[in-house]
Amino acid sequence: MRLSTFSLVAFSALVSANSVTPPTHYGVLLFQAFQALDVFGPLDVLNLHSGTQKNLTLSLLSRNLSPVSTVPVMMNTTFGQSLQPTHTLSSPPPDLEVLIVPGGIGTRAPDLGAEVDFIRTIFPSLRYLISICTGNVLVARAGLLDGKKATGNKKSWSWLTQQGNKTHWVAKARWVVSSEKIWSTSGVSAGVDGFLNFMETVYGEEVARNLEIGLEWSRVTDPNADEFADIWQVEDVLPVE
Amino acid sequence: MRLSTFSLVAFSALVSANSVTPPTHYGVLLFQAFQALDVFGPLDVLNLHSGTQKNLTLSLLSRNLSPVSTVPVMMNTTFGQSLQPTHTLSSPPPDLEVLIVPGGIGTRAPDLGAEVDFIRTIFPSLRYLISICTGNVLVARAGLLDGKKATGNKKSWSWLTQQGNKTHWVAKARWVVSSEKIWSTSGVSAGVDGFLNFMETVYGEEVARNLEIGLEWSRVTDPNADEFADIWQVEDVLPVE
Repeated sequence: MRLSTFSLVAFSALVSANSVTPPTHYGVLLFQAFQALDVFGPLDVLNLHSGTQKNLTLSLLSRNLSPVSTVPVMMNTTFGQSLQPTHTLSSPPPDLEVLIVPGGIGTRAPDLGAEVDFIRTIFPSLRYLISICTGNVLVARAGLLDGKKATGNKKSWSWLTQQGNKTHWVAKARWVVSSEKIWSTSGVSAGVDGFLNFMETVYGEEVARNLEIGLEWSRVTDPNADEFADIWQVEDVLPVE
Repeated sequence: MRLSTFSLVAFSALVSANSVTPPTHYGVLLFQAFQALDVFGPLDVLNLHSGTQKNLTLSLLSRNLSPVSTVPVMMNTTFGQSLQPTHTLSSPPPDLEVLIVPGGIGTRAPDLGAEVDFIRTIFPSLRYLISICTGNVLVARAGLLDGKKATGNKKSWSWLTQQGNKTHWVAKARWVVSSEKIWSTSGVSAGVDGFLNFMETVYGEEVARNLEIGLEWSRVTDPNADEFADIWQVEDVLPVE
């Protein structure tokens, strides 16, 4: 990789600034039939991190305050788990810094306007957005991936890439840093690798390494090492001019 | 590996029998300060599997029906998530087939007698027990790993292995099949690799492979490929004679 002098300086300044003021307030967007591991992978990284950084706060955001279930009711199954939201989308906490958007079958629901509007509206006040799996569909619909590179779930590639035609969808990627504010990851488990890359960028290499070891996570550290792109035989989808 | 004719026949019979009657009723033991990924790793494997095997049932078992939190209150942090139990330990569902026992800081609590008693009491009626991370401490205290090989969290190795002195604790193991009923896994993320091995044994190779690919899980398929044993420089602990 070739880095210009300017970008190296800018990168150093970014890391330095982030080291001084790491984010403390994380949020997760929840909706019916979210993918459990998309949420609990990154959250368990944070659970472990909260043992050393004591001032972390978590907000769980949903349309209303009813428990939100992973169960894909449209698939005629009742097996799943539920999470209790802490805030509604219309009354989010004012100081949210990082928003995690999971994927799941629920991203195929016909009416996700409230979730997409929430992402679009809150984005300017966020410091970071972590978009996982088919959660990238919601972020793309919010227009936040326009003109950017991103990735997503490989099994759902053909559908997913049709949901945002102003994005360069990168097929062979475990995750993509779409901008200095947005991490876009491939499917489910890739969320943890992408999130650990985010943690490394924000908190430094040692913190990320300790979290990886603590969780005994066999981490993929090369963003382009994506065996699932080969398995699903997917290819890059370029933005429509 | 050398297999005698007898063991090959016995193995084929076992696989055949399991193919005919795969388990449908899974349970998870919950306690204060359980490790989220120990639970949601295997459960998200099952969430995905429930899309094809529609008759899966999940029970979440705890001392009482209050929400159970991952928060390690003893560590002066409030960051975490909660799950709502479906059953108490004193009134478990009568037809539970598979019990998943997670680890977490909560396994260090002074009074876990109710959980250990529950594991010991329900075990004879179970078909399978999946013991993850420091959850192996609870299973060892219940006497179920006496005279068997097992493994567990590598960061907590010296403490963990002192909790069951009739067990051969295997250091370099992502998971150990302790008996035809018990899978014992290493820390946190290793639970998914061990659980996928369980799924492969019970449902067959194709099912496990589809789950692995569906979750984009970079699976460790060799039970002895454990980089974390080297990182923590742990060694086998033999049973006290």
